[in-house]
Amino acid sequence: MSVRFPEVNTPATLVDRQRLQRNIDAMAEYARAHELRLRPHAKTHKIVEITRIQLQAGAVGLSVATLGEAKVFVESGVEDIFVAYPVWASQEQAAELLRLANKARLSIGADSVEAIHNLAQRIPEQRERIGILIEVNSGHNRSGRMPPDVVPVAQAVVDAGFSFRGVFTFPGHSYGPDQAKPAVSDEEQALASAKEALVAAGIPTEVLSGGSSPTATLMHGGVVTEMRPGVYVFGDAQQLELDRIGWDDIALTILTTVVSRDDGSSGSTRRIVVDAGSKVMGGDRPAWTTGFGRVMGEPDARITALSEHHGTIIWPEEQDLPEIGSRLQVIPNHVCVAVNLVDYLYVTDGNEPLEKWQVAARGLNC
Amino acid sequence: MSVRFPEVNTPATLVDRQRLQRNIDAMAEYARAHELRLRPHAKTHKIVEITRIQLQAGAVGLSVATLGEAKVFVESGVEDIFVAYPVWASQEQAAELLRLANKARLSIGADSVEAIHNLAQRIPEQRERIGILIEVNSGHNRSGRMPPDVVPVAQAVVDAGFSFRGVFTFPGHSYGPDQAKPAVSDEEQALASAKEALVAAGIPTEVLSGGSSPTATLMHGGVVTEMRPGVYVFGDAQQLELDRIGWDDIALTILTTVVSRDDGSSGSTRRIVVDAGSKVMGGDRPAWTTGFGRVMGEPDARITALSEHHGTIIWPEEQDLPEIGSRLQVIPNHVCVAVNLVDYLYVTDGNEPLEKWQVAARGLNC
Repeated sequence: MSVRFPEVNTPATLVDRQRLQRNIDAMAEYARAHELRLRPHAKTHKIVEITRIQLQAGAVGLSVATLGEAKVFVESGVEDIFVAYPVWASQEQAAELLRLANKARLSIGADSVEAIHNLAQRIPEQRERIGILIEVNSGHNRSGRMPPDVVPVAQAVVDAGFSFRGVFTFPGHSYGPDQAKPAVSDEEQALASAKEALVAAGIPTEVLSGGSSPTATLMHGGVVTEMRPGVYVFGDAQQLELDRIGWDDIALTILTTVVSRDDGSSGSTRRIVVDAGSKVMGGDRPAWTTGFGRVMGEPDARITALSEHHGTIIWPEEQDLPEIGSRLQVIPNHVCVAVNLVDYLYVTDGNEPLEKWQVAARGLNC
Repeated sequence: MSVRFPEVNTPATLVDRQRLQRNIDAMAEYARAHELRLRPHAKTHKIVEITRIQLQAGAVGLSVATLGEAKVFVESGVEDIFVAYPVWASQEQAAELLRLANKARLSIGADSVEAIHNLAQRIPEQRERIGILIEVNSGHNRSGRMPPDVVPVAQAVVDAGFSFRGVFTFPGHSYGPDQAKPAVSDEEQALASAKEALVAAGIPTEVLSGGSSPTATLMHGGVVTEMRPGVYVFGDAQQLELDRIGWDDIALTILTTVVSRDDGSSGSTRRIVVDAGSKVMGGDRPAWTTGFGRVMGEPDARITALSEHHGTIIWPEEQDLPEIGSRLQVIPNHVCVAVNLVDYLYVTDGNEPLEKWQVAARGLNC
């Protein structure tokens, strides 16, 4: 029995360096071809080395989800960062925001007049250092305002003396079978309609920022000026099952050992159990997925259950069950949560581990 | 607007010290009353300070899920640890196992002859230092052997010269409405039947170890000798919705800020969005739950969606929507995965943070 990557204990999260580069280059090329500025979402990987590859390939800056993530990347030398989130800052966070805005071009999201007033109360001066984009609800019905309702929030930004930079949206309703194309239309219409309302109110609007991983390579450019995909660097089982990527695009897998095996001869279910559970794969399991992830190279295997340290896999009837002690590579459903569960990724050339990259912004939820 | 715990940025994971102590004492008392040895599962909390409280209350030792967790707790001074998992050890892990077994009474789980042979190959001497319990499948159909099939595995343990210590099971099929009581019967029958087969084969069997959080306080003692509950220290939304605990037993909550609010007047859904998403709550969402967690003190609020940094909450129609910037405490569905997402818990007396406890074994998946 050959054991893949014998020098690494399992479960271990692996990145294929060549596929990573190919994914990053392809998205940069798509953005260039469609005159979209690419601002990748770094919450997916949280890794300084990967931001450098993205910026080198032509990204204009980064998107992040939290001030903690912004801090890590500003301190690593990134010069332009957008916190794509409706930030509600404490006094300590407001001071940190201003400090970072004096080291890099920094923008944050907002979707309420109250959040602008809160920020203004905590930041008495140098407000112009802080860029603000207003979030538009384009159909995902999470945060964000309906398009005409962005005007009073933008007006509060202008009145307070912060730098109004534009509008953004996350068309998260693209996550579902055949939902990506309609979500692109929703996004374009919502952003265009928000801009129209702002211009009518006398507020010039530069940035129209959108995009999600399912919609990224369906965006047209023209109306939208900027895209913020995240997952594309690694790919994951969700993107695969939404037919947005192919098996060869998967750059991140979890190396796992078969720790239990039941051939079904005692009347129980024929199955294997691997040591990749929800504490390394993440627990995301939308109803439209086939299971809790996929098995690399085994399209008919099904991950039917995840406990914290157990993944239960039903193997195709016509194939031999893997031996106990053998190793597989499994693909998490949602790579952003999987990366957040480990301190390091093992970078490989497909055959052996070359180096370890630290997940520098791991767990920085605020 | 009053802000709870203003000195803490959100999201933050809080533990109520008094409730924690009450939960630990109550389980210790139950175990004593039923003549069960209590070996709490430390994968739930991964915190040295909490193991000390558990041991002081009468726990006989700890259960853990991985060798990495075992190492942290052996080095903190715990003298008796059971890795309740079918361990498949690499050479490095086998050496580590033996090292730990020379510092504490250490046992591991196994459910295959192959795993015993693998271990024997890697550990040529001092095998008697390592205790082994065979895992029984009592109906959860994850790892473990059907009761009669434990005999050849136990025989391999005896033949190799490891210390055979007994059998264990995890009745995880207790996680479902009205499933706890039947799962207790399954567990007792499976363990008794495995023991019977072992004794008939001339293998004396001391430990019969069982338990899960839903079944723990339904166990009878007598047949089963040991229990390994984990979640009981904190409680969580799953245990609440399974009617295994009450609201006042919840010792762990996530402090979160309302970052977005939509009163529904623009035709969208009336909702709030908080900054506790799946990267702090965990993504577990079994079909029988009401949502992705609960809101403390608001039994009719529903957490209908979690993104990584957004929790969407539908508020009862008849109640005023919380203001933007106000703070709530939310309860994760599955506390074991939630604790694994943070470096520290804030320990409180219900009113203010008293100290921080490090999640010392965080992320130690192998």
